[in-house]
Amino acid sequence: MPEATVAPWPVSSVRVRVPATSANLGPGFDSMGIALDLWNDFELDMDGGEPGVSVSVIGEGELTLPRDRSHLTIGTLLDELARHGIPAPERLSLRCRNDIPSASGLGSSSSAVVAGLIMATVLRLAATTGRRVRPHEIELHDVLARAVEVEGHGDNVTPAIYGGLQVVYTHGDHYRNRAIPIPPTKVVVCVPDFLYLTSQARAALPASISHADAVFNIGHAMLVAEALRSQDDALLSDALRDALHEQYRLPSIPGAFDARQAALDASAIAVCLSGAGPGLLAFARKEHDTIGEAMVAAFRRHRLNARYWVLSASTGGVRVDIV
Amino acid sequence: MPEATVAPWPVSSVRVRVPATSANLGPGFDSMGIALDLWNDFELDMDGGEPGVSVSVIGEGELTLPRDRSHLTIGTLLDELARHGIPAPERLSLRCRNDIPSASGLGSSSSAVVAGLIMATVLRLAATTGRRVRPHEIELHDVLARAVEVEGHGDNVTPAIYGGLQVVYTHGDHYRNRAIPIPPTKVVVCVPDFLYLTSQARAALPASISHADAVFNIGHAMLVAEALRSQDDALLSDALRDALHEQYRLPSIPGAFDARQAALDASAIAVCLSGAGPGLLAFARKEHDTIGEAMVAAFRRHRLNARYWVLSASTGGVRVDIV
Repeated sequence: MPEATVAPWPVSSVRVRVPATSANLGPGFDSMGIALDLWNDFELDMDGGEPGVSVSVIGEGELTLPRDRSHLTIGTLLDELARHGIPAPERLSLRCRNDIPSASGLGSSSSAVVAGLIMATVLRLAATTGRRVRPHEIELHDVLARAVEVEGHGDNVTPAIYGGLQVVYTHGDHYRNRAIPIPPTKVVVCVPDFLYLTSQARAALPASISHADAVFNIGHAMLVAEALRSQDDALLSDALRDALHEQYRLPSIPGAFDARQAALDASAIAVCLSGAGPGLLAFARKEHDTIGEAMVAAFRRHRLNARYWVLSASTGGVRVDIV
Repeated sequence: MPEATVAPWPVSSVRVRVPATSANLGPGFDSMGIALDLWNDFELDMDGGEPGVSVSVIGEGELTLPRDRSHLTIGTLLDELARHGIPAPERLSLRCRNDIPSASGLGSSSSAVVAGLIMATVLRLAATTGRRVRPHEIELHDVLARAVEVEGHGDNVTPAIYGGLQVVYTHGDHYRNRAIPIPPTKVVVCVPDFLYLTSQARAALPASISHADAVFNIGHAMLVAEALRSQDDALLSDALRDALHEQYRLPSIPGAFDARQAALDASAIAVCLSGAGPGLLAFARKEHDTIGEAMVAAFRRHRLNARYWVLSASTGGVRVDIV
């Protein structure tokens, strides 16, 4: 007996746009993340053309990202369909237009995972109902729960899905999140061309920590949230300090200390590692380009090319179009 | 040559009222405290009567607190004067009217220290200027800095001095604080008659902790602040959970687990240890007396007498009158 197929699919195309995210924000280690107005755009087509999987990538990662089933979005999509016993469409054509730099600490992997999970949700709903699916039918909290399982933590995927400044926490076996509303916020992100894998970044952390360091982060994290909420730059400057991860990670990224100092000297309010790096995130009220250029110059002095982006926090998260 | 004296003192009486405080608030371990509308009232007289030190205590601690130089307020006052080379007044009469239960986790020691430091500041200013001192001349941040040195941490003394919900943190060698504005908030505090010393409570903690536990508290602490600020009871119920101290302390306080559960069963939103205990603090919107009685009954089942207070958060901190 041939494997069941869903043909023709009631959905011909799913387009998912996912924002960049910056996790940790200094003391909010593994607990806080913010969405940024820089997007990866994933479009999946199931109609026409040759059978099989095809992937195209334009923009960030176009020279390095895989073009087959090992692409994170396709891989996630196929895994999800298999988990639910839904046969994959005969033809899967994924077109990626990436603005989020890969392996930068800006959540490009999370964006790919979120896109794959959303696409899988749409196909699953379509296969179950036999009709076209509307974006509001996607249960984002289910997508989030699964994204946390796939990613291992939620400080990137949560703002990627919901936008804004998000605090993430566990409640028993459940994973929860809460947005802290903040006024319009602008940052400078600088990413050096330096391969610093998240696995490396995690291995750099000591196995256990002192109460003093934990207490340091607890107090400071509360005040980062309060400073961003109340736009108190003096408080943000005081509060955006960490004792749990940056001291172990920054030394592995050539020029990171200098770039941080250069940003502060160029009037940044406060600077932290973006996620596990290697990117740096600087909060600033003015002189954003000057700050970005200063960080790039600092990395160059350490023989690393670097690029910078001036970005607004994004109040919105993932966007989905279904045709 | 006789020791220099300041006579007559340009100040004859200093009255200092200090609110109760509850530190930690669950995940805000050593980082957060709130002032409560329950006061210790300290009045120091320097005029008339016999030379020497006399102390009277009415109310909480009247059977146990020392009546001599070892009273924490007098001891702190004399130490401070000695530090600044200022001779103590010939006559020091301290009258205490205490509403804060001693050794309860409600900051009674902090109140005594703060009172002593404020009195010392007033006498020092009087000795230096030779005139009466006005309360606004007292630099509260200097009092705070010294109070943190004396107490070792600032999560009680900061709300005792400034009132409100306070986040405390270190910045280099400096100690800083920030109020998070919250709407009117009511709590039930239940204190069992059980001697649980802060030193014992601190010794109960493990020497080092895991990243996971630190991360747990970072996320939850941010959301306790956010929940109290935005009066989100569902969030408070989720967020007021701790992984760093309560699990090690609650088992040493007979009936504490039951009392916590009894409060929740009686419609408390969330319950935490007050400071290092043995008191428990329950947030509630209604049925405050029912909650208090349920906690008292739970402690009684463990053969401990207990008392409860229904208290509002105090927006104001220490109050000073100088005559």
